[in-house]
Amino acid sequence: MTAVELIEKKRDGDTLTANEIRWLIDAYTKGVVKDYQMAAMTMAVFLNGLTAEELAVWTDAMMHSGDVLDLDMIAKPKVDKHSTGGVGDKVSIPLVPMVAACGVAIPMISGRGLGHTGGTLDKLESIPGFTTNLDRERFTSILEQYGLVLAGQSKSLVPADRKLYALRDSTGTVPSIPLISSSIMSKKLAEDLDGLVLDVKVGIGAFMKDEASARTLAKTMVGIGSAHGTTTVAYLTRMDEPLGLEVGNASEIIESIAVLRGDGPADLTEVTMVLAAEMLVLGGIEGSLETANKRLAQVIASGEALELFGQVIEAQGGNRDVIDDPSLLPKASHRFEVKAPASGYVRAVNALAVGRAAMSLGAGRETKDQKVDPGVGITLHAKTGDSVEQGAPLATLAFNDHDRVEAALALLREAWEIGEALTPQELIIDRIDG
Amino acid sequence: MTAVELIEKKRDGDTLTANEIRWLIDAYTKGVVKDYQMAAMTMAVFLNGLTAEELAVWTDAMMHSGDVLDLDMIAKPKVDKHSTGGVGDKVSIPLVPMVAACGVAIPMISGRGLGHTGGTLDKLESIPGFTTNLDRERFTSILEQYGLVLAGQSKSLVPADRKLYALRDSTGTVPSIPLISSSIMSKKLAEDLDGLVLDVKVGIGAFMKDEASARTLAKTMVGIGSAHGTTTVAYLTRMDEPLGLEVGNASEIIESIAVLRGDGPADLTEVTMVLAAEMLVLGGIEGSLETANKRLAQVIASGEALELFGQVIEAQGGNRDVIDDPSLLPKASHRFEVKAPASGYVRAVNALAVGRAAMSLGAGRETKDQKVDPGVGITLHAKTGDSVEQGAPLATLAFNDHDRVEAALALLREAWEIGEALTPQELIIDRIDG
Repeated sequence: MTAVELIEKKRDGDTLTANEIRWLIDAYTKGVVKDYQMAAMTMAVFLNGLTAEELAVWTDAMMHSGDVLDLDMIAKPKVDKHSTGGVGDKVSIPLVPMVAACGVAIPMISGRGLGHTGGTLDKLESIPGFTTNLDRERFTSILEQYGLVLAGQSKSLVPADRKLYALRDSTGTVPSIPLISSSIMSKKLAEDLDGLVLDVKVGIGAFMKDEASARTLAKTMVGIGSAHGTTTVAYLTRMDEPLGLEVGNASEIIESIAVLRGDGPADLTEVTMVLAAEMLVLGGIEGSLETANKRLAQVIASGEALELFGQVIEAQGGNRDVIDDPSLLPKASHRFEVKAPASGYVRAVNALAVGRAAMSLGAGRETKDQKVDPGVGITLHAKTGDSVEQGAPLATLAFNDHDRVEAALALLREAWEIGEALTPQELIIDRIDG
Repeated sequence: MTAVELIEKKRDGDTLTANEIRWLIDAYTKGVVKDYQMAAMTMAVFLNGLTAEELAVWTDAMMHSGDVLDLDMIAKPKVDKHSTGGVGDKVSIPLVPMVAACGVAIPMISGRGLGHTGGTLDKLESIPGFTTNLDRERFTSILEQYGLVLAGQSKSLVPADRKLYALRDSTGTVPSIPLISSSIMSKKLAEDLDGLVLDVKVGIGAFMKDEASARTLAKTMVGIGSAHGTTTVAYLTRMDEPLGLEVGNASEIIESIAVLRGDGPADLTEVTMVLAAEMLVLGGIEGSLETANKRLAQVIASGEALELFGQVIEAQGGNRDVIDDPSLLPKASHRFEVKAPASGYVRAVNALAVGRAAMSLGAGRETKDQKVDPGVGITLHAKTGDSVEQGAPLATLAFNDHDRVEAALALLREAWEIGEALTPQELIIDRIDG
């Protein structure tokens, strides 16, 4: 078997055998198949696709390119959640303690933000002392003790994806549904899960701008999960405007704590509850989404979910007092308000523009090696459907560096559309299962 | 401009601008655009193609990636010939002195053989002392003095093609008509020509197995030549069986000398004469193919063509006595005859099988770093249309290494098809001009 033969097959629209795919991924991970060969292969995959069977094997081969977690020692059902990424999308942070408080174990391994979308790791690391860099022993011990753990990806987990993602990024093959699906699913399935809930974002602030592509991506990932024997459910949720009112890092931790107190913004709470309820059902803790919702409401009302979040913050080296005292979190030194240029109803808040503005203030990173400023961000005061008066605040920018404000403002001034009243669209577009 | 942006454009079926293509080729030659990026780009080109305008610029950019010959000091018209490669295809060797003897200058730069097809350089280098490694000064001086020169490609000529061809070879993007065309034409157009004749081989022993692909390749190359302002004519010629009776290196020199004496095999002589006549017309030496043929017959009959070949052999360091004494050429130490298994008419001699058999004896190379054995080869005794008796010789193998004979024999035994009489097909399939 040679790389050229396999590239030629895929180039000509033929189907690769399981053996061929496993050889390719293994040889690429080991450096036997070269970057330039894999670049040609991924372009052929981009243009000619992979069948469902090829994709299942491809994902499995990626997953087995490195260490795979063995969580047999965890007696609880293990379910995780993944989002394709959006602006203000801090759902994982309140969701994980809520679901864990109900008895599902969540071995969550997250990524960092890149471009206009934030990353769960960056948000968590705004908590003083909090580390997501956990070795295998500490990861398992926290998971065993608390039923949840919030970790970063170790280098030994799915090394093929690390290599392949960097290659795709520099060769124009990022937006390929089979390649995106296998990248996400190989990392999630390596967590040794019983179930997985996917939040596939749709809209201007999402990776998938249109519903049809998002649906294809969701179905593809659900298919991979099923082929692997891990029950997977995907939700299509709207990402035209930011989720919640906070876009930043420390500020999103504060908003997440509000959700855990039962006091979060309606849209953020809705998405969190829907995905959390699905996880309880997938974990076999509840028989229906209705009873799951009741159970989640209980752990919020009782304070159990918030208490658990405090415990895991402490277990991961963070200062748990941030729960009661947000002033312990990093805070930017300056504020600037964006005012409404006219009276009327908010018809849209462009999530991409807000995400880019937050990134330009330093809340996100444009390239992987940039550092994130945890205290900066944007607070929204008016979202779609709200009425505003001319001169009323639309958003507050929190910043540390005056030189960065102008670019952010230029983006934000175009972000709000104000005009006639409208009925906001449904946040949860669809549920897709196997 | 970034490589990723250009890859994405071609990936999505868009057209690249002239500036974009020139930047890409230049940046790739300099190593700014990486091999893995060019691999993704060439796969996108393979699958999505290049327009005629893109291809003209691509070829021109390749050509200008290194030195371009300036042959203004040559008063004669400059015309060259290129073949896409076949088995037993030694046409260039008798053709060049014939055409040069008529007053056309030929600055021929050739390649080495790879796979089942031989290379002009390898054949010429079987002449003791002959070198094709000529510096610029020697190249020009031989061309000025004799009106012909037979050189190998210097490293400074079209370096983009050297890099790109190696990359394509290891990434499954060799058989792409735009990429093949630009590779061939960039090298030929860098020779500062007034005209170019292309021999596009069609058939089992050729790179293009079917007439339709060969026709597309021919038209594409003629189009590139016209766009560049170099009148280009292509012939489609049949390559189902080897051309002539000799497949090897030294043996093909002997057969080439026979053509120059007016004593060559009919098929080899026919192709040589047709292409040579076209070159005289393109060079403005003769007004029609008919008068060109007469002029060529004269320089053969007078011995001028053969004499000129002797002179250029000497000028390039070779022993010109080989012309009169073939025993001065390398010769293999052993012979083996393949006999006809049955009586009847030869219906086919599989050129690919014969080419591979010759390669396996050492006449060709499978990989670039292999050395060629100049004395080994195969002599055919029966070609398509000939009648044979059972037990009569079909071919003689000349070899040095007994270990290599078995593989060659296995290929050769399947090469002849013997049965009912048939009328051989026309050798010259078509002529394509701008």
